Amino acid sequence: MPLSFATNMRVRFPLMAIGLEVVMIVLFAFFVQYETNKNTSTSPNSTELPAMDTDKTMESYPHFQDVHFMVFAGFGFLMTFLRKYGFSGVGINLLIAALGLQWGTIIQGLFRSHGQRFQIEIKNMIQADFSTVPVLISFGAVLGKTSPIQMLIMTILEITVFAANEFLVFEVFSASDIGESMTIHAFGAYFGLAVAGILYRSGLKEGHPNEESVYHSDLFAMIGSLFLWIFWPSFNSATASDAKKQYRAIVNTYFSLAASVVIAYACSSLLESQGKLNMVHIQNATLAGGVAVGTCADMEIPPYYAMIIGSIAGVVSVFGFKFLTPFFTTKLRIHDTCGVHNLHGLPGVIGGLAGIITVALEKSDSTAAVSQLAALGSSIATALVGGLITGAILKIPFWAQPPDEDCYDDYVYWEVPMRIEYDNRFHELLDYLPSEREA
Amino acid sequence: MPLSFATNMRVRFPLMAIGLEVVMIVLFAFFVQYETNKNTSTSPNSTELPAMDTDKTMESYPHFQDVHFMVFAGFGFLMTFLRKYGFSGVGINLLIAALGLQWGTIIQGLFRSHGQRFQIEIKNMIQADFSTVPVLISFGAVLGKTSPIQMLIMTILEITVFAANEFLVFEVFSASDIGESMTIHAFGAYFGLAVAGILYRSGLKEGHPNEESVYHSDLFAMIGSLFLWIFWPSFNSATASDAKKQYRAIVNTYFSLAASVVIAYACSSLLESQGKLNMVHIQNATLAGGVAVGTCADMEIPPYYAMIIGSIAGVVSVFGFKFLTPFFTTKLRIHDTCGVHNLHGLPGVIGGLAGIITVALEKSDSTAAVSQLAALGSSIATALVGGLITGAILKIPFWAQPPDEDCYDDYVYWEVPMRIEYDNRFHELLDYLPSEREA
Amino acid sequence: MPLSFATNMRVRFPLMAIGLEVVMIVLFAFFVQYETNKNTSTSPNSTELPAMDTDKTMESYPHFQDVHFMVFAGFGFLMTFLRKYGFSGVGINLLIAALGLQWGTIIQGLFRSHGQRFQIEIKNMIQADFSTVPVLISFGAVLGKTSPIQMLIMTILEITVFAANEFLVFEVFSASDIGESMTIHAFGAYFGLAVAGILYRSGLKEGHPNEESVYHSDLFAMIGSLFLWIFWPSFNSATASDAKKQYRAIVNTYFSLAASVVIAYACSSLLESQGKLNMVHIQNATLAGGVAVGTCADMEIPPYYAMIIGSIAGVVSVFGFKFLTPFFTTKLRIHDTCGVHNLHGLPGVIGGLAGIITVALEKSDSTAAVSQLAALGSSIATALVGGLITGAILKIPFWAQPPDEDCYDDYVYWEVPMRIEYDNRFHELLDYLPSEREA
Repeated sequence: MPLSFATNMRVRFPLMAIGLEVVMIVLFAFFVQYETNKNTSTSPNSTELPAMDTDKTMESYPHFQDVHFMVFAGFGFLMTFLRKYGFSGVGINLLIAALGLQWGTIIQGLFRSHGQRFQIEIKNMIQADFSTVPVLISFGAVLGKTSPIQMLIMTILEITVFAANEFLVFEVFSASDIGESMTIHAFGAYFGLAVAGILYRSGLKEGHPNEESVYHSDLFAMIGSLFLWIFWPSFNSATASDAKKQYRAIVNTYFSLAASVVIAYACSSLLESQGKLNMVHIQNATLAGGVAVGTCADMEIPPYYAMIIGSIAGVVSVFGFKFLTPFFTTKLRIHDTCGVHNLHGLPGVIGGLAGIITVALEKSDSTAAVSQLAALGSSIATALVGGLITGAILKIPFWAQPPDEDCYDDYVYWEVPMRIEYDNRFHELLDYLPSEREA
Repeated sequence: MPLSFATNMRVRFPLMAIGLEVVMIVLFAFFVQYETNKNTSTSPNSTELPAMDTDKTMESYPHFQDVHFMVFAGFGFLMTFLRKYGFSGVGINLLIAALGLQWGTIIQGLFRSHGQRFQIEIKNMIQADFSTVPVLISFGAVLGKTSPIQMLIMTILEITVFAANEFLVFEVFSASDIGESMTIHAFGAYFGLAVAGILYRSGLKEGHPNEESVYHSDLFAMIGSLFLWIFWPSFNSATASDAKKQYRAIVNTYFSLAASVVIAYACSSLLESQGKLNMVHIQNATLAGGVAVGTCADMEIPPYYAMIIGSIAGVVSVFGFKFLTPFFTTKLRIHDTCGVHNLHGLPGVIGGLAGIITVALEKSDSTAAVSQLAALGSSIATALVGGLITGAILKIPFWAQPPDEDCYDDYVYWEVPMRIEYDNRFHELLDYLPSEREA
Repeated sequence: MPLSFATNMRVRFPLMAIGLEVVMIVLFAFFVQYETNKNTSTSPNSTELPAMDTDKTMESYPHFQDVHFMVFAGFGFLMTFLRKYGFSGVGINLLIAALGLQWGTIIQGLFRSHGQRFQIEIKNMIQADFSTVPVLISFGAVLGKTSPIQMLIMTILEITVFAANEFLVFEVFSASDIGESMTIHAFGAYFGLAVAGILYRSGLKEGHPNEESVYHSDLFAMIGSLFLWIFWPSFNSATASDAKKQYRAIVNTYFSLAASVVIAYACSSLLESQGKLNMVHIQNATLAGGVAVGTCADMEIPPYYAMIIGSIAGVVSVFGFKFLTPFFTTKLRIHDTCGVHNLHGLPGVIGGLAGIITVALEKSDSTAAVSQLAALGSSIATALVGGLITGAILKIPFWAQPPDEDCYDDYVYWEVPMRIEYDNRFHELLDYLPSEREA
């Protein structure tokens, strides 16, 4: 069956992708330089860059690799849980992150250098990878209901707003957010929810037959979930300013995550019929402790405090999946495919609040707590405004968005091997046969 | 079909998991502290902790991440080989390890500090991860025949006995066991075999239709197997006391593993009908070299000696899978689902023996060799006693254990997507059709 | 159905594998030694080895682990894309690499030490892992059409030629090739193509029903592809001689890869019917930027130059898959299963050319550029000659090669669980049913 023009990407997608890459290369040519490069550029602001301590910058490389692994393999496989949308889950994740890290490098670098040429240290690569994470979170909210073209646009717009909010939070408010609970997780979730709200499809309010997992797709998603879980201590400590803070961020994240696993399992069994465990909770809520401890991970909190934060996040996350997500879909007309609100949104807000409380208890003056509050408010507000505007742009019916009946199905944008057809046919097959277990 | 009370975990599992997590948080509040935390605790033994060299402790972080990856992704996916038990394999592995690392931190810390408050260095996190490995090994022996509640109990009991034996081996006997061949691998295997012996189900002596792999589940298991294989040099060198020993442990493990791969392939083809390779051997016996070289990996052995150890382990492991496992099941009434005896038990004993020989050849006095022998004996003896007692406790018919017919099936404890039902139905379907290849 | 003698490996494979392992152990006993080992050897050339700076050698360990991960998990899973050949893809990859790293250690060490005893630093382990990569690339060219016995032979022969060419390139020509675009990637690809040309099967010129992916096998392959993508900056920087070069190799590879992802997606959509994305391109061409930037990654090129190289490689790779591979199969009678020519061959040559240009621009004298040209020529020429000879040896009808009808099917060399039979039957089943989507 040939695709109609509506979803055929042949011209639009390559043009946009190549165009964006050309823009990136031009921007890099103008603004990015090694200390050691001869200044052959004709750019007017081509001054000598300060010397870089290469040994020092290389110290961040193991942390970079851990974060890099999370972004590409962790988030990528976490999004393969849908039975017919695994290619897009892992494949569009790669596309977003590869484009996003280039744009993030530029936009963060320009904020940092006040528009001058700049060089790239390993920490900047960590930050470039970080800048893609809010987009990957927002991608989770609209997974299955958007086209790759829309995701290219969202990547550019969201990272721009993200970098502006980061500037506000860290430079203007001087707030603390080592694991970026507020600036990445809450921001990415609320941005995504705003986009999802604008792109709401009333035709899918009764659900969609493709919006379900199969046994193997849940195992693929567990690969991603575990990768994120394992490296989260690196994520929360990657940009620490000294070894003591880095060490504390690692230890606190380690124990917060462990606590959120035990509590997430307990709550899953408590809420599901017959006390069973639910893979959606296991894949997601076990990570909530990593998000929620992010803001205060490097502060002088004792580990048991981190474990309490992780436990609360585990509870809130599972309850969110069970009760809030259906409420959002039916009452608020916001459909959040991966439930990013429960994994990133609520735990991100918990992280922000834990940061405010910790700072208030730790320091005598109240300015620091007010800064933290401003950071949380700014992250949510810029996310919502940015998400609404982005959603409005993505709603323009020219971006090859899938029709309702083809949502959550790779075949619209991917060559898929025959087997996926067979999956469909199999459901018919089942009707030919007497059922077994239920009998 | 509703589950009967027998296997419905709704009340029992959440209560036990939440209760254990609360206990962990309370124990952490009493006993775990950062050097820099203000001593606000009311605990009587709240004295100032010694200063920590943060830069030095952070040097272990890359090793920690490698070990962490093995525990959660390596062991987790290795246990997804059964066609209908992948959720439990990777999911209960996560639960055991997340609870176990908290309990391991406490119990190992108390042994180390003689009951005083203590702080956590990165090496202690490595040791906490290590403490979960014997439980994951024992989990392999009883995979598919136990409930998540039973595994929570086993986690607490086994880590307690493990920490006590570690204290004996390293503090009392002053033995060497850098890769913990004896204290982790042999211990975990014999503990698991003892539990499996007590929990023996005569109703399953003819096997069970679910106890088999499918093509994709074997590939998932290869993910875990390779992760373990790749990072084993880090496992065996993670706790080395100086750079020279660490370096030797890495090099020796690297070559021992390589030799055991080649030999395991050879033996698999030698023993299987028509010279074919068997995935069970490839997933497991290729790792035996890492286990067996563990005790003497950091000693002054030449690499070819490590390769001989790896080769012997490869042979023994494949022969164990082929001949010993069936013998254990039918004659000894010990059913070892993953064959942990062949991967961890026998290679662990080989490791202990190699350690004795190496120490005896290396040092003039015979005390050191006697210490090694005592360590091996202690590891096996405490494992067997601890396993028998644990097995007796797990046999109490209140822990939601699965009935024989529902063994090796995720649906008892997990919400499973429809596809797994379809697997069952498919076997009926096949009967409708003429066979092809065999014809 | 019993296998005929032709493909039954029972005697031949174990004999060869055990024989090779024994040879490796003997060679290690003669030639490999730690600085600290007592010189108990009776070998005549047993002199004292120079002291090793253990702290310094350990600095390479994180890089080693990244490369190790790529070799075993990255290449392994990348080759699981065929629907019935996943066991061989990941399993024979492991066998080749485990044997190859031992042989690579020996042959590279002997070249380095001029036939004397030598010790092994972590960098030598990186180089040993590197030496297996050309074989894994060539394995991709003949995937599905060869036996494990043939792969053992190819491993020994190819690594020997590879080490000789490396000696030429680095010692004789003193060329630069930090990421070994020429010496590993182009070499491995052209060696494999030469072997594939000799082993051409005219019986398969119309293709083979097993030579296709299914939905899940493509996802397994994405695991491998992403692992390679993520760690490629480590691959290209692992053997850098100083921190500055290492840093530059990381940054340039990072951006080259990002650019090649965006461009590969664009070209895939441009060339496929209806603008769809093709998994073959996504799994492979996204990596082309890492290959192509390899030669000049550590040179003083600005990042935008790396991005241009990555973009060109992305274009060439996708066009290669679309047009060159069919041409090679039908016209040149060279069937390249994984399309290694498009991922390693052409991008490797691009890398070599980029190196020549960069060196010519950077340095005043033209000798350096001539050296680079000699290195590229030598890599391709030795690969072709070595591949032709190896192919001739592998053609001897004694190595249990599969008959045409059993190509790309694990069952010839592996015990496979029933499900794979079911896959076959399923295609019959489909005929019983009315089609759905096409209707």
